[in-house]
Formats: sequence, C-alpha cells, structure tokens
Amino acid sequence: MYDLIIIGGGPAGYAAAIRAGQKGKKVVCVEQERPGGTCLNWGCIPTKTIVTSAEVFATVAKSKSFGILCDEPQVDFAQIMARSRRVVDTLARGMDFLFKKNKVESIEGRARIETADTVTVIKADNTMQTLQGKAILIATGGLPKTLPNLVVDGKQVFTSRELLAAKKMPASMIILGGGSIGVECAYYLNALGCKVTLVEMLPHILPLEDAEIAAALTRSFQRQGMTVLTNTKAENIAVSESGVSLDLVGDNKKANLQAEALLVAVGVRANTENLFGENFSLKLDAQGFIAVDEHYQTSVKNVFAAGDVIGAPLLAHVATFEGLQALKGILGEGTPKRVDLFPSCVYCHPQVASVGKNEEALKREGIEYRVGKFPFSASAKAVILAEPEGFIKILTDTTYGEILGAHIVGSGATELIAEYALAMQAELTVDDIHATIHGHPTFAEAGAEAAASVRGSALLI
Amino acid sequence: MYDLIIIGGGPAGYAAAIRAGQKGKKVVCVEQERPGGTCLNWGCIPTKTIVTSAEVFATVAKSKSFGILCDEPQVDFAQIMARSRRVVDTLARGMDFLFKKNKVESIEGRARIETADTVTVIKADNTMQTLQGKAILIATGGLPKTLPNLVVDGKQVFTSRELLAAKKMPASMIILGGGSIGVECAYYLNALGCKVTLVEMLPHILPLEDAEIAAALTRSFQRQGMTVLTNTKAENIAVSESGVSLDLVGDNKKANLQAEALLVAVGVRANTENLFGENFSLKLDAQGFIAVDEHYQTSVKNVFAAGDVIGAPLLAHVATFEGLQALKGILGEGTPKRVDLFPSCVYCHPQVASVGKNEEALKREGIEYRVGKFPFSASAKAVILAEPEGFIKILTDTTYGEILGAHIVGSGATELIAEYALAMQAELTVDDIHATIHGHPTFAEAGAEAAASVRGSALLI
Repeated sequence: MYDLIIIGGGPAGYAAAIRAGQKGKKVVCVEQERPGGTCLNWGCIPTKTIVTSAEVFATVAKSKSFGILCDEPQVDFAQIMARSRRVVDTLARGMDFLFKKNKVESIEGRARIETADTVTVIKADNTMQTLQGKAILIATGGLPKTLPNLVVDGKQVFTSRELLAAKKMPASMIILGGGSIGVECAYYLNALGCKVTLVEMLPHILPLEDAEIAAALTRSFQRQGMTVLTNTKAENIAVSESGVSLDLVGDNKKANLQAEALLVAVGVRANTENLFGENFSLKLDAQGFIAVDEHYQTSVKNVFAAGDVIGAPLLAHVATFEGLQALKGILGEGTPKRVDLFPSCVYCHPQVASVGKNEEALKREGIEYRVGKFPFSASAKAVILAEPEGFIKILTDTTYGEILGAHIVGSGATELIAEYALAMQAELTVDDIHATIHGHPTFAEAGAEAAASVRGSALLI
Repeated sequence: MYDLIIIGGGPAGYAAAIRAGQKGKKVVCVEQERPGGTCLNWGCIPTKTIVTSAEVFATVAKSKSFGILCDEPQVDFAQIMARSRRVVDTLARGMDFLFKKNKVESIEGRARIETADTVTVIKADNTMQTLQGKAILIATGGLPKTLPNLVVDGKQVFTSRELLAAKKMPASMIILGGGSIGVECAYYLNALGCKVTLVEMLPHILPLEDAEIAAALTRSFQRQGMTVLTNTKAENIAVSESGVSLDLVGDNKKANLQAEALLVAVGVRANTENLFGENFSLKLDAQGFIAVDEHYQTSVKNVFAAGDVIGAPLLAHVATFEGLQALKGILGEGTPKRVDLFPSCVYCHPQVASVGKNEEALKREGIEYRVGKFPFSASAKAVILAEPEGFIKILTDTTYGEILGAHIVGSGATELIAEYALAMQAELTVDDIHATIHGHPTFAEAGAEAAASVRGSALLI
C-alpha cells in the first residue's frame, strides 16, 4: 500500500513526488514516457533550446556590427534538433537522479484509475501491474488540441509536439493560434529561415497579455519578416502532397493561403484519455478539465489533481506550485494555496513576460489605475546590447501605488519579471521599487524608472 | 544667481541637475568634457559595450554546438572600439537632450570654487566665466590611481581610461589590480585573444566580494586561459620599447614577468585637482575623499558633494542615488538617505553580482547566519544556454530567514540581483522569495531554490 500514487511525471507530478519522498512517504510515480512531462520532454525545454539556437543565429548574423567578423551563418537544422534532444536527455537524467535520491518509485506505463485506491498500470512490456494507495494524485497534464478531420502526420501537419521531432524545417509554415506556443514557434521558425504566417482568431496575438504589449510584439514580428493575421479564422483546410491550403476568413474578407506545412497551436485540453476505468468517474469542468476543491481534491475522496489537467493557467511553474500545494492537501498539512499570482513568460524574441492584471482586465473590472512606463530605447543596457525594442509597463492603484500588474516586452523580460512577481507577492508599491538602488547598466533599472514614472518622477524620460 | 551650481556631469551630477530642472530650479552644470561623466564616457558604458563584443565573439566561436555554422570568427578590434564610442555618443546625446528638456544649463569647462557661492569656469575656448549660486554641488567623481614614477602613456601603460581609447589590442597584458575594473578588462582582453596575467595584492580577486564567489570566478578565468595571481605585488616596473617588465613578489617568491603592455587598475582617488581656489578649502577624509554630513553638506555651508568624490562605494548607480539625495539636502526637502544597501555588479563572464553582506563580513561581525545555495548546473535555463557555471548563494539570519546578503556568480547575475536588492530593501525573508512563483525555465527560479534550501526544502538539489 503506497501513501501516494502519482499519475504523471511532469512539473506537477514530479514536484509532488520528490517532496513526498523528502517527507519519507512511500510514493510511486507512473509515467507513460519518462519523468519530466510535456514541459521537459515536448514543451518548454526543447522549445527554449531551439529558441536559443535561433538567437545564436541572429547574433552570428549581426556579429559584424559588434566588430566580430565571420561569414554568413548557415542553419544546421538537424544539429539544432539534436541539441534540443540532448538538453532534454541531460535534464531527464537529472530527474531520474532526483527520483532515486528521494526514494520515489518510478514506473513506466499507462495508468488507469479503477477505484479511489486502486490503479492499474499497463507497462511498456505490456504486462499489467496493480497499485494500491491511500491517495492518488492525477497530474497527467494536457495535450495539444487539434482540429476536426485534420490528421496530424508530423510531416505536413504538426502540433507543437511533432514539430519538436521534425526531421527538416519546412520552407513555409502557417501557424494557427497566436498563443504562447504559436508565438514561440513562429519566432524560431522565422529566425531560422522558414516563411511564417501566424494566424490568430482573436483581436491580438498572445490574447492573455496586455494589448499594448501584444501590439509591440506584432510590430516586431512584422519587422522580422513574419505575416501576422489577427481576427482571422482558417477554413477549408486541405492537405495534399504538395502542401497545405486553407482559406483565411476575417474582417469580411476571404483569401486562400498555401504553405508547405501547418502548425496547429489552438490550445490545450486535459489529458484524461483512458485514465478512468469503467467503474470510476469524477467531475470535470465545462472545458473538460478536472474539477478540484480548495484542497486539490477531486469529486472523489482521496483522489486529487494538480497541474494542466485542472485547467488554466497552463504553465509549468504553476503546475509545480500546484503539485506541492496538492501534496499539502493530501497530507492534511494546513490549507493549500490556489494560484492567484504567477508570472507568464513567452520565450520569443523580444521576450514577453507579465504578472498580475493587464490594462484590459483593470478596465473590465472597473478598477482605477495609474500607468508607469519606460522604453528600452532609453536604457543604456539596451543600447549596449543593440536591443532597444520594447518597454516595461507597471500598473498601480491610484491611492498607494500598489503594483497591480507588470508587463514587459523586450530582451530579458522573462528574468526581469521576477522582481515584480516578488513585489506583488509581498504587496509592495512602486515606491519600494523606486527606493531600491538598481545596478547600472541593467535592464532592471529601466523598471525602477517605470516605477518612478507612475509618480511623475522618472529621471531619464 | 543660480539656485544650484553643479560641478561634474556624471551620474551624481546629471541626476541632481535633471531633478533640479524638473523642480523648476535655475541650475547650471559645469563639466570639463561632456555630460555623462566617467561612467558614460570612460567607464561602465564603453567597457560593457566591449564586453558585449567579447561575448558575441564567444557565442560565434561556439555557434556550431548550437547548430549554427560559420567559419572561425576574427576580431576587428578597431570596429569594437569604434562601436563602443558610437554607443557612448548615442547615450551622451540622450543626456544633452535631457539637459535641454529639463532646462539645465550646461557649460563645458573647468570649474574652480572660489567661495561658497562663487565658481569660476575656464571654458574650452580659454575664456573665463564667473558663476554665482545659492548652493554648489561637487560631483567631480574620481580618477584612476596610478603608481609612482610610472608614466601612463596609453601605448604600453594604461589605466582603464586610456585602454578605452586604445588603437590596437596588445598581444599580452599584465593587469595590476583584481577589482571590478581589472576583472572586466581581464575578461574582454582574454576573450578577444590577448594573453592576460591578472595580479592582485589581496588574497582574492574582487576583494569586496564573497570569497567563495571570487574563488569560482578565479577558476573560470583560469579555465578561460588567464593567469590569476593573488597575494602578489609588482615591483621594479620597467617600461621599454620592447614591452613592460616587472617583478612579481608574493608568498616569499619573486619572479620576473614581461608583457607587451600594463594596465594599472589599483583603485580610484577623488577628483579634486585644481578644484579649489586659493581662498577656499574644505575637509577631506583620510583617503582624500570629500567629507560630508548627513545632508551631503561639506564642511563649508552651502557646498555639498555626492558621488565618487565622497568615497566608496564607487558605483555609478550609487552616485546617481547620492546625487538625488544630496539635492534633497540642498533644497531642504526632508532628510536625505545615505546609501546602505546597493547592488554590486561586475560585467565579466560569468558575471558577478551581490547585495548586502558576504560570509566574511558576517563572521567578522559575529552575526550567526544560514546559507542557501543553488548551482546553475542544476538549472534548466543554464543547461539550455550552455551556461552551467556559477551559483546563487543567499545568507539569512537564523531566526526569521531575513535576507542578509545575496551573492551570484554566473550568466545574468547583474540582472538577477535586482530581486534580492528589492527583497532586502523591503526586509523580506527567504520564505517570501520561495512563496513567489518564479517562471520556468529561468535563472530566477534558481534563486527561489536557493531560498528554499535555507529551510532545507529545495526541490531540485
């Protein structure tokens, strides 16, 4: 009898597994692939590794302006993909090590929940094993949504997952969906020489981000050579040996578009396929994600869930947090926290990162606010790095200057956002930011100027 | 009659000048060169620009491992130096713009204080002008210290300033002084192909930084091919047409060393040369820096001072802070703050950054402390970027987990430190850091793990 059976070895599952092991619990983690989940194996990690190669390409291409001479760089796509797998393998070995170190039993196989304390596993060698546990944590994550009647073949039609195993880079790609996955793939494909058309149904790409930030990213993407279409749907998708054809429908217009390949990045659904035996069921929400209470417990006692499988925000670091909090719920250690404050990070170039509410949300909720802003074009560090694109924008209440949201587009945004996440976590104000001496020259000091500008006391703008 | 005469247009002077202008004061800034001071013209900015070129060289040189193919990069030293001057010019124009926008009068010339309300200026065209002001702010900064009987010729013997105007890169360089200036120059010279010997009199390079951090940087510098000698002095320095020769004395040993050139980076002295007329004097401290009271007022009423000229910490961002605080003192707007908390940033590779106390200081002061640490080798972001060197180390008190110091060596350290400066400014604990969700994959999350490790609850180590 295990103390805990965890189904899924991604950021929610592995975090809970390691912590349970650290606490001396008898814990088993069942994973159909290998520990690490989508994030490590088919998501954040390989994608950011390819993005890094794209950034290296961009650096080499402009190295002459920095006084470094070399010939025109060439893209070795096979080596880029091979490196992304090597990085994944390295980190996956680290995960194996942590499981062993913390005495987490790891089983490779597909789990099915039969009852609230019984899980059967069909292992890689087709044998079956039955596990008994005092509690079950479902951390099976998500799967890319696809479109009806469209076969994802990994040759002409991809989701993010197949794209990470692509053997060659398509010469041209239509990307359906301008969320973070679509945007990251758009960046690196375009940077490496693929002709990219990015299609988003909603009024702007990165629909969850501040509209002004998204507009800045859109302009940058266009300057980089991409076609970005918003308020646009795709219809009549046809795949043939010669490529992909579809009709773009938007703003009362319709146009045909063809490309060598199609990336479907239209969202993520809960991964609950074949997860429940015929005598087991639990409550799902309207979008098909697993509903949990304030202890991360599902509608079935002793069966808990965390991570992407319980719905948005669908982010690895949120899943890790939820996994650890769910473990508190499972072990009855105080009241677990639900995620209310988290950074969002998009690893295109320029990067996008945010925490808290954006201007649209504040308006929608009728909250009065002030705006502080500082353009990276006025940042010494940005001029030094030749990265003047972007800005930092801080939103505060009108009374105390408490930070309600911070939004960054530009180089290094995904690291810079940490300061604002901490500030919001501790309910600090822009005056706290501004009173802190920031290093010079850094991007971080641009944030301090943005904070000062809320009070009209920026120095450099 | 001016409200304020500012002598020196560096980070202390320009900050006070712009803020005084914003407040509607009649303010003049006298600067013998052009606004921006050492930092912008002959310090941080051009140095970091050259460091950026060195990093571009390193990226190009290893681009193949990222799947980007090009031939061996060549260093175009003239173009690297030219870019550093272009960046300086761009930012200096920005400073001119800010002066005009904020109605700061700018005079190019050498100022001499005759009385507490009178300054004479010998202008570039050798005419003289007399200025009358209600207050004077001395912000003349510092100058590199040199050695007795050693002529700095800018050909074989350099200080950091002449090196920034070098026409060609020496094939070999002895650097005397392992402080931040010596270390930054050592990094970029070595990276660009110069044979570097870095000589420090004290037990470790970066003597103001945590010893463990300095040891990690030393190992990295050695791996990069530099010779690093500590506890070592130079004697019998001889300069001839064929190069520089000197004796290294340390640990009871003596050895001769020769190189094409010598960089003297042994510290900074106050820039007060010819600053005071024959009927004017004020109190200096034991090191020759100008002594000021809690209002940044010197021993002479209505004469204030800020920035490097009042002594350590000798950092541009500290000078800016002091300039703004001194202005408060001048205008009688509340009690100015003295600098007690500031980030230190060293722009070599790997970078070094810190805030608060290091282990040696805590031991010296008899403060009990806990240590949290996380190696970047266990950071997914570091593996992705192939930058596994370094670590983050957090020091806290033993009761509350209040952060007493944070010390980082590794890629991106100078930006990462901002989160810890804010945390210390707001007197937050490691639990506040750990409770904040950090983006994945980022270097910032390594800090959260270091924070957790203080409590023994890191997940990934």
